[in-house]
Amino acid sequence: MKHATNITWHQSKVNLEDIERKNGHKGCVVWLTGLSGSGKSTIAVELEKQLFAFGCHTFILDGDNIRHGLNNNLGFSPVDREENIRRIGEVAKLFRAGGFIVITAFISPYKKDRLAARELIDEGHFIEVYVRCSLDECENRDPKGLYKKAKAGLIPDFTGISAPYEEPDNCELVVDTEQLSVLESTQLIIKELYNKGIIDH
Amino acid sequence: MKHATNITWHQSKVNLEDIERKNGHKGCVVWLTGLSGSGKSTIAVELEKQLFAFGCHTFILDGDNIRHGLNNNLGFSPVDREENIRRIGEVAKLFRAGGFIVITAFISPYKKDRLAARELIDEGHFIEVYVRCSLDECENRDPKGLYKKAKAGLIPDFTGISAPYEEPDNCELVVDTEQLSVLESTQLIIKELYNKGIIDH
Repeated sequence: MKHATNITWHQSKVNLEDIERKNGHKGCVVWLTGLSGSGKSTIAVELEKQLFAFGCHTFILDGDNIRHGLNNNLGFSPVDREENIRRIGEVAKLFRAGGFIVITAFISPYKKDRLAARELIDEGHFIEVYVRCSLDECENRDPKGLYKKAKAGLIPDFTGISAPYEEPDNCELVVDTEQLSVLESTQLIIKELYNKGIIDH
Repeated sequence: MKHATNITWHQSKVNLEDIERKNGHKGCVVWLTGLSGSGKSTIAVELEKQLFAFGCHTFILDGDNIRHGLNNNLGFSPVDREENIRRIGEVAKLFRAGGFIVITAFISPYKKDRLAARELIDEGHFIEVYVRCSLDECENRDPKGLYKKAKAGLIPDFTGISAPYEEPDNCELVVDTEQLSVLESTQLIIKELYNKGIIDH
């Protein structure tokens, strides 16, 4: 058959159930929020490694692959921060639709932006994790020297110094990185994924 | 160990080679371009179905999941079209980094925007497919009634009617949907993926 009239406009698509059956786990969004230096990226990398070892399909969205790519035309004003988190939420939704356990590692300081991201995702598949660490300790760690620069006035609108961080008050999980090691923090998240039925081993 | 000073800032990440080894195929971007009604979405759905049956990890980016989500704040002016395709290219890059064969189904009328998307992806992993169909035939098909509306002046900047489509001149593959069935078109793309070493079966 050689003619375009053969094009079928109604086809059965590969659906999420098919994908999840093949993958052996559900997709979801693990949304890490917390101050700069609280340990989000460190936990994200360890979590990805452990989930991958379990055979899960995971992907990290973080500053490295988002700020330098998709969101390279956004700054740090409140409006741009909102658009930054909006786009991240939409991309997370796409990865969740592709069956991934997608891990986002962004400060995401505003409650309403995190809520908007949550509302994009089917219920029970958005796991908000507050990576809690006191501002004092984050300043002590200051792994990238950003707090020092912010306090010297070299970085405007820096969360915790010159811009607000709104703590979650009903997130799925709090991991306190002043009390817990990276492995302990990661294990708590994996336990939560198990409890939520995302993974079953 | 209970203290945050235990946080390790240098960890081995899960890398693309690990992912591709697990998946049993490479990731890539299959970039479908062509007029409205040329058959891009139909081919995308069939291609996804067949690749999924082969055990591949695939995902379609199309108007349904992009225009209503990530790009819901963009219109159809030249500037917005450019930003539309830029974001799609960046998201495709993320999926490719996650090991997916990501299929994009957008008119993407401008050569320079398609080139910009190509330049985001590692060489040999961007497969531009021109889904070719004459304007006459696309107008005949008019599956969504858009050409009729565009010719009545109800849709401004409509590609092929009141906005240009720049044909690819050195894409990886041309599939002529006036000559080939959906299955034949899809088979050509799968053969190309095989020839490029993306899949090996």
